[in-house]
Amino acid sequence: MDKIRYNRKIYLEDKPRAQAREEVLSAFDLPQKKEWIPAAAALGRITAEPVFAKVSMPFYHASAMDGVAVNAEDTYEAHEQRPLQLKKDEQFTYVDTGNAIPQEFNAVIMVENIHVIDDETIEIIEPATPWQHIRPIGEDIVQEEMLFTQGHQLRPADLGALLAAQATEVCVVKKPLVTIIPTGNELVSADASLSSGRIIEFNGTVFSAYVEDWGGQPLLHPIVKDEPEKIREALLNAADTSEIVVINAGSSAGSKDYTVHILEELGTVFTHGVATRPGKPVILGKIKEKVVVGVPGYPVSAYMALEWFVRPLICKYLGVQEPERAKLKVKLGRRIVSTMGAEDFVRMNIGYVNGQFVANPLTRAAGVTMSLVRADGLLVVPPEELGYEQGDTVEVELYRPVEEIKNAIVFSGSHDMTIDLLSSQLKNQRTDMKIVSSHVGSMAGLMAIRKGEAHVAGIHLLDPETKEYNITYVRKLLAGQDAVLYPFLKRTQGWMLPKGNPLGIEHVSDIAAKNADYANRQKGAGTRILFDLLLREAGLDADQINGYDREMFSHLSVAAEVKGNDNAAGLGIYPAARAMGLDFIPVADESYDLLMTKAFFESEKGRWLTSVIQSHAFQLEVDKIGGYAVVENPQPIYF
Amino acid sequence: MDKIRYNRKIYLEDKPRAQAREEVLSAFDLPQKKEWIPAAAALGRITAEPVFAKVSMPFYHASAMDGVAVNAEDTYEAHEQRPLQLKKDEQFTYVDTGNAIPQEFNAVIMVENIHVIDDETIEIIEPATPWQHIRPIGEDIVQEEMLFTQGHQLRPADLGALLAAQATEVCVVKKPLVTIIPTGNELVSADASLSSGRIIEFNGTVFSAYVEDWGGQPLLHPIVKDEPEKIREALLNAADTSEIVVINAGSSAGSKDYTVHILEELGTVFTHGVATRPGKPVILGKIKEKVVVGVPGYPVSAYMALEWFVRPLICKYLGVQEPERAKLKVKLGRRIVSTMGAEDFVRMNIGYVNGQFVANPLTRAAGVTMSLVRADGLLVVPPEELGYEQGDTVEVELYRPVEEIKNAIVFSGSHDMTIDLLSSQLKNQRTDMKIVSSHVGSMAGLMAIRKGEAHVAGIHLLDPETKEYNITYVRKLLAGQDAVLYPFLKRTQGWMLPKGNPLGIEHVSDIAAKNADYANRQKGAGTRILFDLLLREAGLDADQINGYDREMFSHLSVAAEVKGNDNAAGLGIYPAARAMGLDFIPVADESYDLLMTKAFFESEKGRWLTSVIQSHAFQLEVDKIGGYAVVENPQPIYF
Repeated sequence: MDKIRYNRKIYLEDKPRAQAREEVLSAFDLPQKKEWIPAAAALGRITAEPVFAKVSMPFYHASAMDGVAVNAEDTYEAHEQRPLQLKKDEQFTYVDTGNAIPQEFNAVIMVENIHVIDDETIEIIEPATPWQHIRPIGEDIVQEEMLFTQGHQLRPADLGALLAAQATEVCVVKKPLVTIIPTGNELVSADASLSSGRIIEFNGTVFSAYVEDWGGQPLLHPIVKDEPEKIREALLNAADTSEIVVINAGSSAGSKDYTVHILEELGTVFTHGVATRPGKPVILGKIKEKVVVGVPGYPVSAYMALEWFVRPLICKYLGVQEPERAKLKVKLGRRIVSTMGAEDFVRMNIGYVNGQFVANPLTRAAGVTMSLVRADGLLVVPPEELGYEQGDTVEVELYRPVEEIKNAIVFSGSHDMTIDLLSSQLKNQRTDMKIVSSHVGSMAGLMAIRKGEAHVAGIHLLDPETKEYNITYVRKLLAGQDAVLYPFLKRTQGWMLPKGNPLGIEHVSDIAAKNADYANRQKGAGTRILFDLLLREAGLDADQINGYDREMFSHLSVAAEVKGNDNAAGLGIYPAARAMGLDFIPVADESYDLLMTKAFFESEKGRWLTSVIQSHAFQLEVDKIGGYAVVENPQPIYF
Repeated sequence: MDKIRYNRKIYLEDKPRAQAREEVLSAFDLPQKKEWIPAAAALGRITAEPVFAKVSMPFYHASAMDGVAVNAEDTYEAHEQRPLQLKKDEQFTYVDTGNAIPQEFNAVIMVENIHVIDDETIEIIEPATPWQHIRPIGEDIVQEEMLFTQGHQLRPADLGALLAAQATEVCVVKKPLVTIIPTGNELVSADASLSSGRIIEFNGTVFSAYVEDWGGQPLLHPIVKDEPEKIREALLNAADTSEIVVINAGSSAGSKDYTVHILEELGTVFTHGVATRPGKPVILGKIKEKVVVGVPGYPVSAYMALEWFVRPLICKYLGVQEPERAKLKVKLGRRIVSTMGAEDFVRMNIGYVNGQFVANPLTRAAGVTMSLVRADGLLVVPPEELGYEQGDTVEVELYRPVEEIKNAIVFSGSHDMTIDLLSSQLKNQRTDMKIVSSHVGSMAGLMAIRKGEAHVAGIHLLDPETKEYNITYVRKLLAGQDAVLYPFLKRTQGWMLPKGNPLGIEHVSDIAAKNADYANRQKGAGTRILFDLLLREAGLDADQINGYDREMFSHLSVAAEVKGNDNAAGLGIYPAARAMGLDFIPVADESYDLLMTKAFFESEKGRWLTSVIQSHAFQLEVDKIGGYAVVENPQPIYF
C-alpha cells in the first residue's frame, strides 16, 4: 500500500545551489548546547562563551633570570674600576627564574654578573636599571582580560593560555549530533560476503568521518530497508535525538525513492534537486525543527552534497566560519565541456611540469570514489559557462597542499604494475616525493611528454614495420624536443583467459572463431597496437572480434573483465593475469621503457627515480611479481 | 654532590637551526611500528604499507539506473514511429540500480523510457547502445590495483575506497610515543592554589596537544624536581619506553640546568644552543637510540623549539612530508630590528586595511604565551639580516587562514573593556567577522588610522586648552584625510587604589606627597595625557612621581599592578578597578569615541559594527559592567 501511495512520478528541481544553501541555513536555528570540559582536553573544540583570565600571569613580579634581586638605586655607583659590594637581605637576595621579587627590590642582576665574596656579600661592577630582568605582573596575561571570544577553535598554544590564566575548565559548544541513516535493500556491511547485486555500505562511514572532521558528532544508524514504514520510523527517531539528520539514497526520482514523500508527510521539504553535476538529487527539509538532508546514493554526489549542505549547518551551529580550500591557477591540459544551467564539479589531477601547473579532468562518473581519492583539486564550472578550452587558465580548489603537488612526479602513459612498486619504493626513501600516475596508454603518454604535461611516460609501442619498440615513435613524434628514453623492463604479453581456458583459445584466430567476448584496450595503448598487429598478421578484421569497440584502460581492468565472464578473452601482461588467478598464454616479449623530458631526467628528482630503479630493493620486489626482467645497465637514449 | 658535579660554567652554542635539524633527523632512524586497525577507524592515520584492492568495485556489471536490461542488438529497430515490443526474460529483465546485469544482456534502458504493455511485454521507441547505463566491473576500483602507497594520510573519502575494496583492515603506522617530562621545583599543576614563586605547569599540556596534532602519541610525565637523580631516572625510563623524549626546562646554562650534563653522561649530545631568538637554549641528544629534545622553559621558545625539532622527527617516523604553513606578503607597519647571526622569529598581527595587508610585531618576550595566541603570522628574519624598515614588504607564515585575516576588523588605539563585549556581540551575529584589537593607546591609534593600518581606533584625547575630547586632535592630525568620529561612550576616570586606600590618596598631590608607587600608562595613552594635565594643574613635576617612567599598556595592567602592591596607585577607568576589587575615586568624566576611516564606516562591516553598538543586547551587556553610558543617537562627525 505504501509503495502505491508513494509511487507517483516526480521531477527534480534545478534550484541554484547557493539559494538552496541559504534557505536551509536560515531554517536551521537551534540554540547551541554548551558543556564545560577541562581545558587540557579542549584541543580543537569551539568556545561557546568569551573566556576571561582568572588570574594574571605572572601574578607577581617575577625574576626572569637566576641571580640576585636588588634595588636599582643601590647599584648606581658600581663600575668596572670601582666594584660595589652589596649585603645580603639588606641590599640583595638570591632569586631563581620565576621567583617573586620582594617588594623592597626592583631589579635583577644575572648570576653570571655577580662575584660572590662570602655568604653575606656579593660584588658587582655594573649598575642595574630599574625593572631589568623582571617579568612584571600580567606581562603575559592580565586578570579579567578576554582571552578568547566565543566561536574560537582552541589550538595547542591556546590551551597554555587557558591553564596559565587558571581557566582550567572551559565552556565549549557541544558537538552537534548528526545521525546518518543509510537506506537500500541492496546494502550490506563491508565485512559481509559479496554476491551479485549486493553493495557494500561505505558511504555511512565516510559521512561519519566528514562530520567528525567538521566538528560534529556522527551517529551511524544501522542500514534501513527501502520500506516507507521503516524509513519513516528512522527519520522520526533521528529528528527527536539529533541536531541534524542525513539520509542516504532514496533522494532521486526512482521507483523506490520514498524519502521526499515521507519528508513532506512528516515535515517540510524546501528543496528537491539542485542545479549541479554531480549531486543533483538532493533533498533539504525539516522535521520538528531538525534539518534533514537527503543525499544521493552515488558516493561522489553524496560527499559533495554533504559538503555543500551539512558542513555549513555544523559550522553555523558551532558559530565558526566555514573553512575555504586553498585555490590555485592551473592550465587546462584538456577541454572541459559543461552543461549550461548547471554547476559542474570536475575532479582534477594537477601536475607541476616545466614550471607550470597543468590540470586534467578525472572521470566525471558520480559512482567513482577513486576520482575523489586521486583528485588534486576541484574545478567548479559555474552554471552560465559551457566549459573551457584546452590551454585556458582556470582556478581550482585544492584537495592537497600545493607543495605536495609541486613535489609529485607526474607519470603518464601505459599502465604497468611495477610503477606502483616504484612509487612505493620512492616514498620509502623520500617522504616528500611521490609518483602520481594516470593510465592513459602509451601513445597518450608520449603526447603528454610532448605537451609538457608529464615528467615520465611508460611506453611499449611496437613499430609494425621494424618490429622495434618505442624508438621510432619517439623519433617521429618528439622531433626537435629534448627527451630521454630510459630502457626499463622486458615483459611478456599474452592471452588472459578464464581459469581452465574454457573456450580453448591459443591463437588470435580462436578469438574470432569461438566468438569470444574480447576485452579490448583503448586506442593508443601499446597492447591495442600489438593486438591490431596480431589481427592483421592473421588476416582478421576488427569487426570479426566481439567487443572490439569497448575500451578498458588497464591490464587489471581487462583481467577483471575476463575473470567475470567464462566466454571472455583479453590480451595483457602476465602479472595482471596472475593477480586475478587467470590462465595466461604468452604471445610476445616486449620492451616497456620510460620516456622522460631531458630536464626531468637530469633533475634531482629524475636522479632519485633512476637510482630507485637501479636499487636492489626495487628489483627484488619486481622479481617477486614474476614475469619481468628489469634492464641491467640501461643506456639512456637521448633524442 | 650531584649539584657540585654539575655546577660548572657552560656556554651555549650558536648552531644554525637547519644544521641542528639535519643532525638530529639523521640520528633518528627507528624502524616504524605498524598496526592493523579497522578501516572505519582509520581517519587521519598514515598507511604503513601500500594498500591494494581485494575486490573490484563494482565486482560485476551493474545497472546504473532503475529500468530493464536488454541486448542492445535486439533494440536497433525501435523508433518513435515504430515502437518495438520486447518479451520478458527472453529479451529483457527488470533491474534496479546496482543490480547485476545477466550475462546475456549488455545495456540498460531507463524505467522512464519504457512503456509497460502487460506483465510479459514492454514497448520501447528508441534503440539502446551497447553498455549504456551499465557500470562495468571495476569502473571505480579494479581488484589488485594499488589504492594508496605507504605514507598516505587517510581522509574521509579514502575510507570509502578502503571499504569498497573490502580492505576492511588497514596497516597503519603506530603513533610514535612521545614522553614529555616537565621539570622544575617551582612548577605546580594548573588546579593548584597559587602562591608567589609557584608557576603553573602548562607547557606539558600544550606539548601534548602539539604532539597529538602532528600525529604522535603524547605521554605527559608527572612534574620532576630539579634534582639530577630524579631527572636521570625519568630520562632513562622514557628512553626505554618511548620513541621520542621531550624534556622541558633545564636546557639553559643556569645553576640548575642539569639536563645537558645528564644527557652527556647517559648518551650523546649533538647540540646545545641554536642561533635563534627566541628558542636558543635547546638541547638535542640521544639516549639508547632514542632522541631526546630539551626545550627551554619559556613557553614561546618552547613551542617553537618543539615545532623545529620534534615535529620533523614525528613526520620522519610516520613517513610523511612535514606540512608547511601558507605564506603571505605583507607591508611592515613598524621597523623590525634583528640580531646579526641569529634567526629571529617575530610574532605578527596582520590587518587587511585599504586593500593591503599590514603587519605589526607583537611583543618579542619569550614568556608571553598570548603573543602566540594573538599572532596572525610569524616573520622569520634570517641570521644575515639586521631587520627591516617600516614599509618594507616581507613574507610571513600564517597562523590563521588568510580569509579570517581579511575579514577581521582591525581595532587600534586605547583599551576599553567594552571593546571585548563588542567583539563578542559581533561574533554572535556574524561568525565570519571578528575584531582584532591591539592596545597601543589613543595617540598611536589615531596614527594607525592616518597610516592606513587600522579600520577603527578607540580614542579619548583631552585637549588641555579647550578641555574638549578628541575633535581637535583629529582635526589637527588627520587633516585632509577622510575620517569619521563616532561618539561612543561616556566613562569615568579615577584613582585606582589598593582595597581600603592604605595611603589615603585623594588627589594627585597625595601621590607625590606619600611617595606612592605610581603605575603609569604609556606615552600617547589618553589616560597618560590626563595624568600629565592633572600634574600640571597641581604644579607638580614628573620626577616627583615614583614610577613615572615605567609604562603599562592597559587599564587592567595598571589595576593588576596596584592590586599587588599596598603602596601603589594608578589612574584608570572604573570597570578595571571593579574587576580587580580595587578602591576607586572618580577624577574626570571623558568621551571615549571611535575614529574610523570613512571607507570602513560606510562599508558593510562598518554598518554591522555600528548596528551592534546600537543594539539592545550590546547596551545591556555594557550596563552590566557599570560606569559607562553609551552615547544615545550618536551623530557621526565627518572630517
